Amino acid sequence: MPGTDKLRIDIERFWSTIERSAEIGPGRPGGLSRLALTDADRQMRDQFVTWCREAGLAVRIDGIGNIFARRAGTDDTLPPVVMGSHLDTQINGGRFDGIAGVLGGLEVCRTLDVLGHHTHRPIEIVNWTNEEGARFSPPMVGSGCFVGTYALDWAQGRRDDDGQSIGEELARIGYLGEMEAEPHAFDAYFEFHIEQGYYLDRDGMQVGVVTGGFPSTGMLVEFKGETAHTGPWPMERRRNALLAGARLLVETDEIGWAYASGGGKATAARLIAWPNKPGILSDWAQAVCDVRHPDPETALAMAERLRRAVGEAAARSGCTAEILDTWNWGGRIFSEELIGSVRETSLGLGYRTQDILSQAGHDAYFVARHAPTTMIFAPCKGGITHNNAELCTREDLEPGLNVLLNAVVARADR
Amino acid sequence: MPGTDKLRIDIERFWSTIERSAEIGPGRPGGLSRLALTDADRQMRDQFVTWCREAGLAVRIDGIGNIFARRAGTDDTLPPVVMGSHLDTQINGGRFDGIAGVLGGLEVCRTLDVLGHHTHRPIEIVNWTNEEGARFSPPMVGSGCFVGTYALDWAQGRRDDDGQSIGEELARIGYLGEMEAEPHAFDAYFEFHIEQGYYLDRDGMQVGVVTGGFPSTGMLVEFKGETAHTGPWPMERRRNALLAGARLLVETDEIGWAYASGGGKATAARLIAWPNKPGILSDWAQAVCDVRHPDPETALAMAERLRRAVGEAAARSGCTAEILDTWNWGGRIFSEELIGSVRETSLGLGYRTQDILSQAGHDAYFVARHAPTTMIFAPCKGGITHNNAELCTREDLEPGLNVLLNAVVARADR
Repeated sequence: MPGTDKLRIDIERFWSTIERSAEIGPGRPGGLSRLALTDADRQMRDQFVTWCREAGLAVRIDGIGNIFARRAGTDDTLPPVVMGSHLDTQINGGRFDGIAGVLGGLEVCRTLDVLGHHTHRPIEIVNWTNEEGARFSPPMVGSGCFVGTYALDWAQGRRDDDGQSIGEELARIGYLGEMEAEPHAFDAYFEFHIEQGYYLDRDGMQVGVVTGGFPSTGMLVEFKGETAHTGPWPMERRRNALLAGARLLVETDEIGWAYASGGGKATAARLIAWPNKPGILSDWAQAVCDVRHPDPETALAMAERLRRAVGEAAARSGCTAEILDTWNWGGRIFSEELIGSVRETSLGLGYRTQDILSQAGHDAYFVARHAPTTMIFAPCKGGITHNNAELCTREDLEPGLNVLLNAVVARADR
Repeated sequence: MPGTDKLRIDIERFWSTIERSAEIGPGRPGGLSRLALTDADRQMRDQFVTWCREAGLAVRIDGIGNIFARRAGTDDTLPPVVMGSHLDTQINGGRFDGIAGVLGGLEVCRTLDVLGHHTHRPIEIVNWTNEEGARFSPPMVGSGCFVGTYALDWAQGRRDDDGQSIGEELARIGYLGEMEAEPHAFDAYFEFHIEQGYYLDRDGMQVGVVTGGFPSTGMLVEFKGETAHTGPWPMERRRNALLAGARLLVETDEIGWAYASGGGKATAARLIAWPNKPGILSDWAQAVCDVRHPDPETALAMAERLRRAVGEAAARSGCTAEILDTWNWGGRIFSEELIGSVRETSLGLGYRTQDILSQAGHDAYFVARHAPTTMIFAPCKGGITHNNAELCTREDLEPGLNVLLNAVVARADR
């Protein structure tokens, strides 16, 4: 692979795309609130598709709204080398998160155009639908659907809090395409992403070589009880579903603390209830909780304890419980070959480089079921993310993007 | 007061008004979902006003939407004897609750019309606005505003979850009247209500003589934290406001159990948070909790423990807390004279009669600050209420209504 270690992206050009993206779906100062399949998401998708077409890429939408933009290879019959992530954000999201991974892929293609470099294999950029799960549950539904983990009908039928479904919203914003019967083959998948932790920043590292992810388990739990008056109804007859949900949230946090010294985390993320009003006990509640730990066995133990907590929270509140959905991700699922290539490329470029586990969920976890996959992390200030204060500088992002460029070109030219 | 113990309401006529009311704002089967100042509440108010005008009553609306319907006295310069309650319901409410108290007042006036009985003092019926607090917090805002506990501006500015204010909604449905500078004097206030507990039903009693209310304290609590990623963010840096709220709810329930053997109750009624989404920690939450106990000292101790729980829930979750609002009601605040009159009237009519404390909040608690006040309870099946299964028969309601009729006429004729 002569000369590939000399390729460089144009950080100012990349930065201008980030800044344009940061105008679409503004949230709190400095942040974004670009939930999946909203008008803001449509506007960002339109902008991305325009940029792709201007770069001569062929754009295709699938049945769950994933956008694939393809740069032809000199042998265009070969499976593509794919880069991507997601353009949607949390409701109080930052400007970088998955966005840097999608627009980083665009920057790689633009760099190759300027160089007049035609890779042997095709290259694709992908924007996965609803990675965040902030509007529709579960998260990462676009990549999960693409690799066949979620059935298309089921995924399209997921509804937001206002009752709108993914399928309806895709049609409304003009991003409902045709699903392939079988997902098209990837030669490899590289996901560039900000770390969303503080290790690289703290340690002065420029590139994180992602060797896997914290094994994680998330659950959507439903509790059912009975409405009654908050005053006269005796304690022993109460069946308050809101309370059952609150008990699960508190116990989830206790699980996190019990395993915190080993790097474990547990999150009480969401609780909704009905009627959830003063004066009346709630007869229905839904909670979303998750646990994660770097050690797979410990992560399993945490998940088992969470499962037991569901039953106990229900029983102590006189309610019934049902785990409506469980999602798992993480583990050592990435390609050793790609991990090695990222590590060598980064070291070859002279960057301060560190192996790291991802603690967050990413589309890459699903894609790893379909093709050799890995991730490249860039540092972000203080690890702050899912917050409008999320911050990366050009200097934080440029090294990882150069690693992405060179690793992808090396892979595509082999 | 010759002959007053012989007056009888017409239970079939009363029942027909209950059945008509049960058609307006239907909820789950058999129940009502007639939240304050909704279109359904307007329709019910319109029906009530029509009935009142048909009965020759003079209708007046005040600045918080309370409806007063007046039957002239032979000396119309005297303060009226007032009956009333509320026509709004919980979101999963029953057909009787406060409705029986308002329509019971109407039935008393209709009975007097048939008898051609003109009382010495005027009689009024009142429908208080937003007793339930199911849409706007706090509950009993109409009566609280009338007696001056809540300032009119403040009360009109209370907003529902969709941001609509009481003042705006009163104007929209045509029930925004003029507030009196000083509330007009009441000679006495009688509130007929279903018990909403199971004692009268269990003990085969026909009439409850309400000697007071469980001293109760409710709180609206706000927690503030910080959004962050549910994955990488370390446990010790988390400031999850949703979790702080959940901790308060659980501790509230523990307080209830600690005092349950003495009749104490504590309720975790409501928890909302923002963003309250998977993948992100919430930076804001609001909870509504309350405690109550028949013994005033113990009720105070429970309230103090609840106050401490607020701070602890915040501290353990890395959040700040503020008690935005506190409401208190109950105690031995009713008029001994009126209590005695209700007891004697009921015994004189031959009913199985029992002294009882109210466990729920009622407008009567506020009115007691303004005039001699008491309540009359009717049994309801199993004490089930704030539930579409709430059930009273004609036989459950007729005795209490006859007590209301005779006690009111005796008072108004003196």
